[in-house]
Amino acid sequence: MTHHIPPAALFPGPADSVFDAMNFLSEVAERYPDAVSFAAGRPSEEHFDADSIPRHIEVYRRYLRDTVGLSDSAVRRRLMQYGPAKGIAREVIAEHLLRDEGISADPEAIVTTVGCQEAMYITARALHSHPDDVLLAVSPTYSGFMGAAALAGIRVLPVKDGSEGIDLDDLIRQVTSARAAGLRPRALYVVPDFANPSGATMGETVRAGLLELADRLDLLIVEDSPYRLIGGAGRLPSLKAQDADCRVVHVGSFAKTVFPGVRVGYCLADQRTGPGTVLADQLARIKSMVTVNTSPVTQAIAAGCLLEHGYSLEGANSRETEAYRRNIAYLVAGLAERFGPDARDEYGVSWNVPAGGFFVVLTTDFPVGDALLEYSADRYKVLWTPMHHFFHGGEQPTGMRLSSSSLTPTEIDTGLDRLVAMVADVRSHGLGEQTGPKEHEAWKNL
Amino acid sequence: MTHHIPPAALFPGPADSVFDAMNFLSEVAERYPDAVSFAAGRPSEEHFDADSIPRHIEVYRRYLRDTVGLSDSAVRRRLMQYGPAKGIAREVIAEHLLRDEGISADPEAIVTTVGCQEAMYITARALHSHPDDVLLAVSPTYSGFMGAAALAGIRVLPVKDGSEGIDLDDLIRQVTSARAAGLRPRALYVVPDFANPSGATMGETVRAGLLELADRLDLLIVEDSPYRLIGGAGRLPSLKAQDADCRVVHVGSFAKTVFPGVRVGYCLADQRTGPGTVLADQLARIKSMVTVNTSPVTQAIAAGCLLEHGYSLEGANSRETEAYRRNIAYLVAGLAERFGPDARDEYGVSWNVPAGGFFVVLTTDFPVGDALLEYSADRYKVLWTPMHHFFHGGEQPTGMRLSSSSLTPTEIDTGLDRLVAMVADVRSHGLGEQTGPKEHEAWKNL
Repeated sequence: MTHHIPPAALFPGPADSVFDAMNFLSEVAERYPDAVSFAAGRPSEEHFDADSIPRHIEVYRRYLRDTVGLSDSAVRRRLMQYGPAKGIAREVIAEHLLRDEGISADPEAIVTTVGCQEAMYITARALHSHPDDVLLAVSPTYSGFMGAAALAGIRVLPVKDGSEGIDLDDLIRQVTSARAAGLRPRALYVVPDFANPSGATMGETVRAGLLELADRLDLLIVEDSPYRLIGGAGRLPSLKAQDADCRVVHVGSFAKTVFPGVRVGYCLADQRTGPGTVLADQLARIKSMVTVNTSPVTQAIAAGCLLEHGYSLEGANSRETEAYRRNIAYLVAGLAERFGPDARDEYGVSWNVPAGGFFVVLTTDFPVGDALLEYSADRYKVLWTPMHHFFHGGEQPTGMRLSSSSLTPTEIDTGLDRLVAMVADVRSHGLGEQTGPKEHEAWKNL
Repeated sequence: MTHHIPPAALFPGPADSVFDAMNFLSEVAERYPDAVSFAAGRPSEEHFDADSIPRHIEVYRRYLRDTVGLSDSAVRRRLMQYGPAKGIAREVIAEHLLRDEGISADPEAIVTTVGCQEAMYITARALHSHPDDVLLAVSPTYSGFMGAAALAGIRVLPVKDGSEGIDLDDLIRQVTSARAAGLRPRALYVVPDFANPSGATMGETVRAGLLELADRLDLLIVEDSPYRLIGGAGRLPSLKAQDADCRVVHVGSFAKTVFPGVRVGYCLADQRTGPGTVLADQLARIKSMVTVNTSPVTQAIAAGCLLEHGYSLEGANSRETEAYRRNIAYLVAGLAERFGPDARDEYGVSWNVPAGGFFVVLTTDFPVGDALLEYSADRYKVLWTPMHHFFHGGEQPTGMRLSSSSLTPTEIDTGLDRLVAMVADVRSHGLGEQTGPKEHEAWKNL
């Protein structure tokens, strides 16, 4: 007899997780292969070069032999044997942080992780030491962080968004009222540059205010910046670079700067936890129970790529950066062109204008959910991500996340033509007339 | 001002975790570099070949192009882009399970993981759906499993060991009394072949009895078999190969058969959870919140290695298998030769005789702990692992785990000479006369 496990007997994870959303989205995408997708927030594949993989490894091997001075057998051991939980290439990552970010990092405070996801998980897990511990994050926020927190069993309180990515007054209100309710707010998760999903970037004043507040409110900041180095010139210093009070845990990823499949990220956690120990020590301890250590082969690929480019990934990605900026500008211009100056009145839509990154949010005065996405895919062959997947409380304006990261200008044009037609259709006729009554109802309930 | 986090404000993890033990052991090993180490349970590095890494990747690329029929850009995407949480090479792993293990696995029931550690963690997390859920494991057990369970917040009840790795009567007792106490035993973790730390292997009758009990007691079995394929001829079928009732979740690792640094493992979980869904679906959902997906590059290395060897890793590792078997036999013969037929009376020691694997346990009638290890390292230049690191309840006989996996026969000889001298010293003079009273006290308290 085949054993059957009822779903209720399994850990459910977050109610509306990134995984369910991605599953739904990729299932829709599969059913409509000829649709243009503004949904996938993936790096461009245009410059993928599979031959770079063995080359990066070889560069790192040579570095170990010629610069570090390891014997051949020691090089083999470094690449192929079990290794330290914190990672094997932390000096290289530290040098990169100095060159590209002006961050002076002690390699002992770095934990190399399986992408940024594991960095977020081990941080959330480390900070959950008491049932009353909570985290905070702007709502809407990156669903991967919500998944990490759910798995760590720690609640995430919503903080209001704003044109610069966070409403600092609301942060004070949330922390104060949480404390009044007996909760222990531990850390705030933020993406200061080109946030996912909002595309917002924090200005200088907001950054300074946030750092000051973290110290005043006795709060850590978990700073995630996957899109910083591919955003182009004129970026502001990261929070960690200005972290005089050591309040910032900086998590990073090479998914957008080396390639996603390398699955290497890191966590810089230099907060003291005792004599001679830092938060990174405890994170490494937790990491050892999740994945033991990150594959040294993938660490070698990331480190080899850094070494090939003199430790700097900003210049190494100039082609990609250029394409991402061009696409975002093209997308925003295309929206303005098509919806016109009276977009809000005529179409019930508005949008933000990020200077870079992957995402733009189209805010709507009509409900937007998974049923509308189905409708959009089926009738107009255009895909996007319903914003409701990214909210975890607080106000929830309706809208769509549009990603232009892996499209060509021609595809953006085609996609926008379809999107505008779909919006015009929904606005002028109502979805009910276009679909059966049952589908209409489903749509209204979203 | 630098922010300081008190240790009590961080998740502590298991009290005596593998990480603490490993940290302690590697610290001792660093302080005594000229010691012979029976402590490290690492695969032999003798046949490490760093050139195999790019070769395996190339073999997998060619397979994708020529056998699967992917275009060059699709091959690049497979290797370098984000990918499915379950992994990209499950058909190859399924074929390997069929050839090497006689297990007929549906690729949809396989989740590729970052080593076996992540497979254990996501399984423990999935099965923890209620505060009363508990797992079971033979005590002593592999500390990595205890770490995974601690992180998943689920208790592990001890089951008695035995010469064949488990006492089935005690399993019945533990499950029955747990249920009487209102607990919900969900799964039993076992390593049926050459267990870590005991070295024990389950016989045919125990395997059949265990499978029958799992069904009768309504329990899952999590079967972990890292040493199976390097144990040599004459192995019995794995539990999963005989799993008529679909009670076995089989976790595996390529750490010992490809190389440790590849960090690729998997979980075969084909239990039905609903119409068209299996346990692997929920494991993949959880995995996506831990590491998103396993690096496709490392999956390519494991798959390429499998393809190079016609899907079979048993033959591919014949040199390593031979060395491991030779070493275990040499270690056991060396113990018998040195301690003689009256080992128990004369020295207060006894040991088991595993047919393969990495480990032998030397059981002692005197206390063995970290202080004795320090003493052994300092005075006799020989290292081993105190057994107390592996117990999580139940009876706790004292002893040492001896690993011969990465030593040469000459090193084993030297190490055994020192070990026997140390034991003789402790037995005949007592540790107190050799060390100061303070150290003696510390030793006695372990």
